[in-house]
Amino acid sequence: MLNSVVKNLDCINALINYFTRLPGVGYKTAERYAYKIIEADKDFVDGFLNAVKSVREKVKLCETCANFAETGKCNICQQRGGKSIICVVKDPRDVIAIEKSNSFNGTYHVLHGVISPLDKKGPNDINLKSLIIRVRDEGTSEVLIATNPDVEGEATANYIASLLKPSGVKVTRLAQGLSLGTNLEYADEVTLGSAIANRREI
Amino acid sequence: MLNSVVKNLDCINALINYFTRLPGVGYKTAERYAYKIIEADKDFVDGFLNAVKSVREKVKLCETCANFAETGKCNICQQRGGKSIICVVKDPRDVIAIEKSNSFNGTYHVLHGVISPLDKKGPNDINLKSLIIRVRDEGTSEVLIATNPDVEGEATANYIASLLKPSGVKVTRLAQGLSLGTNLEYADEVTLGSAIANRREI
Repeated sequence: MLNSVVKNLDCINALINYFTRLPGVGYKTAERYAYKIIEADKDFVDGFLNAVKSVREKVKLCETCANFAETGKCNICQQRGGKSIICVVKDPRDVIAIEKSNSFNGTYHVLHGVISPLDKKGPNDINLKSLIIRVRDEGTSEVLIATNPDVEGEATANYIASLLKPSGVKVTRLAQGLSLGTNLEYADEVTLGSAIANRREI
Repeated sequence: MLNSVVKNLDCINALINYFTRLPGVGYKTAERYAYKIIEADKDFVDGFLNAVKSVREKVKLCETCANFAETGKCNICQQRGGKSIICVVKDPRDVIAIEKSNSFNGTYHVLHGVISPLDKKGPNDINLKSLIIRVRDEGTSEVLIATNPDVEGEATANYIASLLKPSGVKVTRLAQGLSLGTNLEYADEVTLGSAIANRREI
Protein backbone atom coordinates (compact mmCIF):
# COMPACT_ATOMS: atom_id res chain seq x y z
CA MET A 1 0.00 0.00 0.00
CA LEU A 2 2.79 2.40 0.88
CA ASN A 3 4.25 2.03 -2.58
CA SER A 4 1.27 3.65 -4.28
CA VAL A 5 2.44 7.12 -3.30
CA VAL A 6 6.19 6.59 -3.45
CA LYS A 7 6.87 8.47 -6.66
CA ASN A 8 7.22 11.81 -8.34
CA LEU A 9 4.21 13.32 -10.09
CA ASP A 10 3.73 12.11 -13.68
CA CYS A 11 4.66 15.44 -15.22
CA ILE A 12 7.87 15.54 -13.17
CA ASN A 13 8.70 11.98 -14.24
CA ALA A 14 8.18 12.94 -17.87
CA LEU A 15 10.67 15.79 -17.54
CA ILE A 16 13.16 13.55 -15.70
CA ASN A 17 12.96 11.07 -18.57
CA TYR A 18 13.79 13.77 -21.10
CA PHE A 19 16.76 14.90 -19.04
CA THR A 20 18.13 11.34 -18.87
CA ARG A 21 18.37 11.44 -22.66
CA LEU A 22 21.00 14.19 -22.53
CA PRO A 23 24.54 12.76 -22.84
CA GLY A 24 25.95 11.34 -19.60
CA VAL A 25 22.90 12.10 -17.46
CA GLY A 26 21.64 9.39 -15.07
CA TYR A 27 18.36 9.28 -13.15
CA LYS A 28 19.55 11.08 -10.00
CA THR A 29 21.13 13.90 -12.00
CA ALA A 30 18.03 14.24 -14.18
CA GLU A 31 15.92 14.44 -11.03
CA ARG A 32 18.07 17.31 -9.73
CA TYR A 33 17.69 19.17 -13.04
CA ALA A 34 13.91 18.67 -13.00
CA TYR A 35 13.62 20.03 -9.46
CA LYS A 36 15.74 23.00 -10.47
CA ILE A 37 13.27 23.69 -13.30
CA ILE A 38 10.33 23.43 -10.90
CA GLU A 39 11.88 25.71 -8.31
CA ALA A 40 13.56 28.24 -10.63
CA ASP A 41 12.08 31.69 -11.14
CA LYS A 42 9.90 32.40 -14.16
CA ASP A 43 12.60 34.42 -15.96
CA PHE A 44 15.01 31.51 -15.94
CA VAL A 45 12.47 29.05 -17.32
CA ASP A 46 11.17 31.43 -19.99
CA GLY A 47 14.71 32.30 -21.02
CA PHE A 48 15.67 28.66 -21.13
CA LEU A 49 12.66 27.71 -23.29
CA ASN A 50 13.42 30.59 -25.65
CA ALA A 51 17.09 29.60 -25.87
CA VAL A 52 16.12 26.05 -26.88
CA LYS A 53 13.61 27.31 -29.48
CA SER A 54 16.03 29.91 -30.79
CA VAL A 55 18.78 27.35 -31.32
CA ARG A 56 16.41 25.09 -33.20
CA GLU A 57 15.15 27.91 -35.40
CA LYS A 58 18.39 29.76 -36.09
CA VAL A 59 21.07 27.12 -36.39
CA LYS A 60 21.41 26.02 -40.00
CA LEU A 61 24.23 24.30 -41.84
CA CYS A 62 26.66 26.34 -43.93
CA GLU A 63 25.91 25.71 -47.61
CA THR A 64 29.61 25.22 -48.34
CA CYS A 65 31.14 23.33 -45.42
CA ALA A 66 28.08 22.18 -43.39
CA ASN A 67 29.40 23.80 -40.21
CA PHE A 68 26.75 25.46 -38.02
CA ALA A 69 25.71 28.86 -39.39
CA GLU A 70 22.97 31.40 -38.83
CA THR A 71 23.14 32.65 -42.42
CA GLY A 72 23.78 30.84 -45.71
CA LYS A 73 27.53 30.67 -45.09
CA CYS A 74 29.33 30.15 -41.77
CA ASN A 75 31.71 32.81 -40.43
CA ILE A 76 34.77 30.85 -41.47
CA CYS A 77 33.70 30.33 -45.08
CA GLN A 78 32.78 34.02 -45.28
CA GLN A 79 36.15 35.20 -44.01
CA ARG A 80 38.49 32.63 -45.54
CA GLY A 81 36.58 31.61 -48.65
CA GLY A 82 39.54 31.78 -51.00
CA LYS A 83 41.92 29.47 -49.11
CA SER A 84 43.03 26.35 -50.93
CA ILE A 85 43.34 24.04 -47.92
CA ILE A 86 40.32 22.22 -46.50
CA CYS A 87 40.30 20.53 -43.10
CA VAL A 88 37.82 17.62 -42.87
CA VAL A 89 36.30 17.04 -39.42
CA LYS A 90 33.65 14.80 -37.90
CA ASP A 91 31.43 17.46 -36.32
CA PRO A 92 31.18 21.21 -35.58
CA ARG A 93 32.74 20.83 -32.12
CA ASP A 94 35.96 19.74 -33.82
CA VAL A 95 36.01 22.99 -35.79
CA ILE A 96 36.02 24.92 -32.52
CA ALA A 97 38.72 22.67 -31.04
CA ILE A 98 41.01 23.22 -34.04
CA GLU A 99 40.29 26.95 -34.14
CA LYS A 100 41.32 27.18 -30.47
CA SER A 101 44.72 25.70 -31.34
CA ASN A 102 45.33 28.78 -33.55
CA SER A 103 47.29 26.62 -35.99
CA PHE A 104 45.05 26.46 -39.05
CA ASN A 105 43.57 29.17 -41.19
CA GLY A 106 42.01 27.36 -44.11
CA THR A 107 38.37 26.35 -44.44
CA TYR A 108 36.62 23.30 -43.03
CA HIS A 109 34.38 20.53 -44.24
CA VAL A 110 32.11 18.96 -41.62
CA LEU A 111 31.14 15.32 -42.25
CA HIS A 112 28.51 15.11 -39.48
CA GLY A 113 29.59 11.59 -38.64
CA VAL A 114 32.12 8.96 -39.69
CA ILE A 115 31.83 5.72 -41.61
CA SER A 116 30.87 3.11 -39.05
CA PRO A 117 29.48 -0.25 -40.23
CA LEU A 118 28.52 -1.17 -36.65
CA ASP A 119 26.19 1.85 -36.50
CA LYS A 120 25.05 1.18 -40.08
CA LYS A 121 26.66 4.38 -41.31
CA GLY A 122 28.16 4.15 -44.78
CA PRO A 123 29.82 6.75 -47.03
CA ASN A 124 26.41 7.99 -48.21
CA ASP A 125 25.28 8.78 -44.65
CA ILE A 126 27.93 11.44 -44.12
CA ASN A 127 28.51 14.74 -45.91
CA LEU A 128 31.10 13.42 -48.36
CA LYS A 129 29.84 13.99 -51.91
CA SER A 130 29.99 17.76 -51.56
CA LEU A 131 33.66 17.50 -50.51
CA ILE A 132 34.61 15.92 -53.84
CA ILE A 133 32.72 18.68 -55.68
CA ARG A 134 34.39 21.39 -53.56
CA VAL A 135 37.87 20.03 -54.20
CA ARG A 136 37.18 20.07 -57.94
CA ASP A 137 35.50 23.49 -58.07
CA GLU A 138 37.63 25.40 -55.57
CA GLY A 139 40.98 24.29 -56.98
CA THR A 140 41.95 22.97 -53.54
CA SER A 141 45.64 22.19 -53.11
CA GLU A 142 45.46 20.18 -49.88
CA VAL A 143 42.85 18.25 -47.88
CA LEU A 144 43.82 17.72 -44.21
CA ILE A 145 41.74 14.89 -42.75
CA ALA A 146 41.25 15.56 -39.04
CA THR A 147 38.93 12.74 -37.98
CA ASN A 148 39.62 11.16 -34.59
CA PRO A 149 42.54 8.70 -34.37
CA ASP A 150 40.26 5.73 -33.63
CA VAL A 151 39.02 2.81 -35.75
CA GLU A 152 36.13 4.65 -37.43
CA GLY A 153 38.13 7.85 -37.84
CA GLU A 154 41.03 6.02 -39.49
CA ALA A 155 38.73 4.03 -41.78
CA THR A 156 36.94 7.21 -42.81
CA ALA A 157 40.25 8.98 -43.46
CA ASN A 158 41.49 6.13 -45.65
CA TYR A 159 38.23 6.02 -47.57
CA ILE A 160 38.31 9.78 -48.24
CA ALA A 161 41.95 9.57 -49.31
CA SER A 162 41.12 6.84 -51.85
CA LEU A 163 38.20 8.91 -53.18
CA LEU A 164 40.38 11.99 -53.64
CA LYS A 165 43.41 10.26 -55.17
CA PRO A 166 42.15 10.49 -58.80
CA SER A 167 41.81 14.27 -58.49
CA GLY A 168 45.52 14.62 -57.73
CA VAL A 169 44.98 16.77 -54.61
CA LYS A 170 47.46 16.38 -51.73
CA VAL A 171 45.77 14.52 -48.85
CA THR A 172 47.23 14.79 -45.33
CA ARG A 173 46.33 13.42 -41.90
CA LEU A 174 46.87 14.89 -38.40
CA ALA A 175 50.15 13.65 -36.90
CA GLN A 176 49.99 10.96 -34.24
CA GLY A 177 52.44 11.12 -31.37
CA LEU A 178 52.74 11.82 -27.66
CA SER A 179 50.41 14.38 -26.09
CA LEU A 180 51.87 17.22 -24.04
CA GLY A 181 52.56 16.01 -20.50
CA THR A 182 52.25 12.32 -21.30
CA ASN A 183 54.24 9.86 -19.22
CA LEU A 184 56.13 7.53 -21.63
CA GLU A 185 55.53 4.63 -19.29
CA TYR A 186 51.77 4.90 -19.69
CA ALA A 187 51.56 5.74 -23.40
CA ASP A 188 49.85 3.00 -25.45
CA GLU A 189 51.97 0.99 -27.90
CA VAL A 190 50.33 2.33 -31.05
CA THR A 191 50.88 5.96 -30.06
CA LEU A 192 54.44 5.26 -28.98
CA GLY A 193 55.06 3.38 -32.24
CA SER A 194 53.79 6.36 -34.26
CA ALA A 195 55.91 8.75 -32.23
CA ILE A 196 59.03 6.70 -32.99
CA ALA A 197 58.22 6.22 -36.67
CA ASN A 198 57.57 9.96 -37.08
CA ARG A 199 60.55 11.13 -34.97
CA ARG A 200 62.06 14.44 -36.00
CA GLU A 201 65.49 16.01 -35.80
CA ILE A 202 65.97 18.75 -33.21
CA MET B 1 42.48 37.73 -36.56
CA LEU B 2 42.01 34.03 -36.07
CA ASN B 3 40.21 34.62 -32.81
CA SER B 4 37.33 36.44 -34.44
CA VAL B 5 35.73 33.19 -35.60
CA VAL B 6 36.77 30.94 -32.72
CA LYS B 7 33.43 30.65 -30.99
CA ASN B 8 30.03 29.10 -30.99
CA LEU B 9 27.15 31.01 -32.55
CA ASP B 10 25.47 33.50 -30.20
CA CYS B 11 22.27 31.49 -29.92
CA ILE B 12 24.26 28.36 -29.04
CA ASN B 13 26.20 30.30 -26.40
CA ALA B 14 22.95 31.53 -24.89
CA LEU B 15 21.69 27.97 -24.51
CA ILE B 16 25.03 26.82 -23.08
CA ASN B 17 24.79 29.58 -20.46
CA TYR B 18 21.34 28.41 -19.41
CA PHE B 19 22.54 24.82 -19.10
CA THR B 20 25.44 25.91 -16.86
CA ARG B 21 22.86 27.18 -14.39
CA LEU B 22 21.56 23.67 -13.77
CA PRO B 23 23.07 22.15 -10.60
CA GLY B 24 26.57 20.73 -11.05
CA VAL B 25 26.87 21.57 -14.76
CA GLY B 26 30.12 23.13 -16.01
CA TYR B 27 30.85 24.70 -19.39
CA LYS B 28 31.97 21.56 -21.21
CA THR B 29 28.96 19.56 -20.04
CA ALA B 30 26.60 22.41 -20.94
CA GLU B 31 28.15 22.51 -24.41
CA ARG B 32 27.49 18.78 -24.87
CA TYR B 33 23.85 19.27 -23.82
CA ALA B 34 23.44 22.20 -26.23
CA TYR B 35 24.84 20.19 -29.15
CA LYS B 36 22.51 17.33 -28.26
CA ILE B 37 19.58 19.78 -28.48
CA ILE B 38 20.78 21.05 -31.86
CA GLU B 39 21.28 17.59 -33.28
CA ALA B 40 18.27 15.83 -31.71
CA ASP B 41 15.20 15.02 -33.78
CA LYS B 42 12.19 17.32 -33.69
CA ASP B 43 10.11 14.95 -31.55
CA PHE B 44 12.66 14.99 -28.76
CA VAL B 45 12.93 18.78 -28.68
CA ASP B 46 9.16 19.32 -28.88
CA GLY B 47 8.58 16.74 -26.16
CA PHE B 48 11.26 18.28 -24.00
CA LEU B 49 9.83 21.80 -24.37
CA ASN B 50 6.36 20.50 -23.53
CA ALA B 51 7.66 18.61 -20.49
CA VAL B 52 9.26 21.78 -19.13
CA LYS B 53 6.09 23.82 -19.75
CA SER B 54 3.88 21.10 -18.31
CA VAL B 55 5.88 20.88 -15.10
CA ARG B 56 5.69 24.64 -14.66
CA GLU B 57 1.94 24.73 -15.28
CA LYS B 58 0.84 21.63 -13.40
CA VAL B 59 3.04 21.42 -10.33
CA LYS B 60 1.42 23.25 -7.44
CA LEU B 61 1.98 23.00 -3.71
CA CYS B 62 -0.39 20.88 -1.58
CA GLU B 63 -2.62 23.24 0.43
CA THR B 64 -2.01 21.21 3.58
CA CYS B 65 1.62 20.10 3.58
CA ALA B 66 3.19 22.14 0.71
CA ASN B 67 4.49 19.01 -1.01
CA PHE B 68 4.28 19.04 -4.83
CA ALA B 69 0.75 18.29 -6.04
CA GLU B 70 -1.21 18.50 -9.26
CA THR B 71 -4.50 19.06 -7.45
CA GLY B 72 -5.34 20.95 -4.25
CA LYS B 73 -4.01 18.18 -2.02
CA CYS B 74 -1.03 15.90 -2.64
CA ASN B 75 -1.47 12.12 -2.92
CA ILE B 76 -0.18 11.53 0.57
CA CYS B 77 -2.50 14.00 2.28
CA GLN B 78 -5.41 12.56 0.30
CA GLN B 79 -4.68 8.98 1.32
CA ARG B 80 -3.45 9.44 4.88
CA GLY B 81 -5.27 12.59 5.92
CA GLY B 82 -6.37 11.31 9.31
CA LYS B 83 -2.96 10.29 10.69
CA SER B 84 -1.79 12.04 13.82
CA ILE B 85 1.94 12.04 13.09
CA ILE B 86 3.57 14.69 10.91
CA CYS B 87 7.06 14.38 9.48
CA VAL B 88 8.74 17.77 8.83
CA VAL B 89 11.19 17.82 5.90
CA LYS B 90 13.25 20.41 4.08
CA ASP B 91 11.98 19.81 0.52
CA PRO B 92 9.84 17.48 -1.61
CA ARG B 93 12.80 15.24 -2.51
CA ASP B 94 13.07 14.29 1.16
CA VAL B 95 9.44 13.09 1.11
CA ILE B 96 10.34 10.67 -1.68
CA ALA B 97 13.48 9.51 0.14
CA ILE B 98 11.53 8.76 3.32
CA GLU B 99 8.70 7.08 1.39
CA LYS B 100 11.26 4.80 -0.26
CA SER B 101 12.41 3.60 3.17
CA ASN B 102 8.88 2.22 3.71
CA SER B 103 9.10 3.07 7.42
CA PHE B 104 6.68 5.94 7.83
CA ASN B 105 3.01 6.22 7.05
CA GLY B 106 1.94 9.53 8.52
CA THR B 107 1.68 12.82 6.65
CA TYR B 108 4.41 15.31 5.83
CA HIS B 109 5.07 19.00 6.16
CA VAL B 110 7.47 20.50 3.65
CA LEU B 111 9.40 23.58 4.83
CA HIS B 112 10.90 24.50 1.43
CA GLY B 113 14.17 25.47 3.06
CA VAL B 114 15.80 25.65 6.48
CA ILE B 115 16.71 28.51 8.76
CA SER B 116 20.10 29.73 7.60
CA PRO B 117 21.36 33.15 8.72
CA LEU B 118 24.25 32.97 6.24
CA ASP B 119 21.76 32.79 3.35
CA LYS B 120 19.55 35.40 5.06
CA LYS B 121 16.80 32.85 5.61
CA GLY B 122 14.91 33.30 8.86
CA PRO B 123 11.89 31.44 10.34
CA ASN B 124 9.51 33.58 8.26
CA ASP B 125 11.15 32.53 5.00
CA ILE B 126 10.18 28.88 5.37
CA ASN B 127 6.77 27.23 5.53
CA LEU B 128 6.55 27.13 9.33
CA LYS B 129 3.46 29.07 10.43
CA SER B 130 1.08 26.61 8.80
CA LEU B 131 2.74 23.76 10.75
CA ILE B 132 1.76 25.33 14.07
CA ILE B 133 -1.82 25.72 12.82
CA ARG B 134 -1.92 22.14 11.54
CA VAL B 135 -0.68 20.72 14.84
CA ARG B 136 -3.41 22.64 16.67
CA ASP B 137 -6.24 21.86 14.23
CA GLU B 138 -5.42 18.24 13.36
CA GLY B 139 -4.94 17.10 16.96
CA THR B 140 -1.46 15.88 16.02
CA SER B 141 0.15 13.54 18.59
CA GLU B 142 3.73 13.60 17.28
CA VAL B 143 5.91 15.79 15.07
CA LEU B 144 8.97 14.00 13.67
CA ILE B 145 11.56 16.55 12.51
CA ALA B 146 13.51 15.05 9.61
CA THR B 147 15.73 17.94 8.53
CA ASN B 148 19.30 17.06 7.55
CA PRO B 149 21.76 16.37 10.39
CA ASP B 150 23.89 19.44 9.56
CA VAL B 151 24.23 22.87 11.21
CA GLU B 152 21.20 24.49 9.54
CA GLY B 153 19.09 21.35 9.86
CA GLU B 154 19.84 21.02 13.58
CA ALA B 155 19.20 24.71 14.23
CA THR B 156 15.89 24.51 12.37
CA ALA B 157 14.89 21.38 14.30
CA ASN B 158 15.64 23.05 17.63
CA TYR B 159 13.74 26.16 16.65
CA ILE B 160 10.67 24.15 15.60
CA ALA B 161 10.82 22.12 18.82
CA SER B 162 10.84 25.31 20.89
CA LEU B 163 7.86 26.66 18.91
CA LEU B 164 5.84 23.49 19.43
CA LYS B 165 6.64 22.98 23.11
CA PRO B 166 3.74 25.15 24.41
CA SER B 167 1.22 23.03 22.44
CA GLY B 168 2.27 19.90 24.37
CA VAL B 169 2.77 17.79 21.23
CA LYS B 170 5.54 15.14 21.29
CA VAL B 171 8.46 16.31 19.14
CA THR B 172 10.98 13.74 17.85
CA ARG B 173 14.08 13.84 15.68
CA LEU B 174 15.57 11.23 13.33
CA ALA B 175 18.14 9.05 15.12
CA GLN B 176 21.80 9.68 14.44
CA GLY B 177 24.15 6.73 14.28
CA LEU B 178 26.25 4.64 11.92
CA SER B 179 25.05 4.15 8.36
CA LEU B 180 24.76 0.64 6.94
CA GLY B 181 28.16 -0.56 5.72
CA THR B 182 30.15 2.15 7.49
CA ASN B 183 33.68 1.36 8.54
CA LEU B 184 34.04 2.36 12.25
CA GLU B 185 37.56 3.57 11.60
CA TYR B 186 36.34 6.22 9.16
CA ALA B 187 33.16 7.35 10.95
CA ASP B 188 33.34 10.97 12.14
CA GLU B 189 33.51 11.64 15.90
CA VAL B 190 30.08 13.24 16.18
CA THR B 191 28.32 10.34 14.48
CA LEU B 192 30.26 7.80 16.52
CA GLY B 193 29.48 9.75 19.69
CA SER B 194 25.75 9.70 18.88
CA ALA B 195 25.90 5.99 18.08
CA ILE B 196 27.44 5.28 21.51
CA ALA B 197 25.08 7.58 23.40
CA ASN B 198 22.06 5.99 21.71
CA ARG B 199 23.28 2.37 21.96
CA ARG B 200 20.57 -0.26 22.27
CA GLU B 201 20.36 -3.70 23.84
CA ILE B 202 20.29 -6.67 21.46
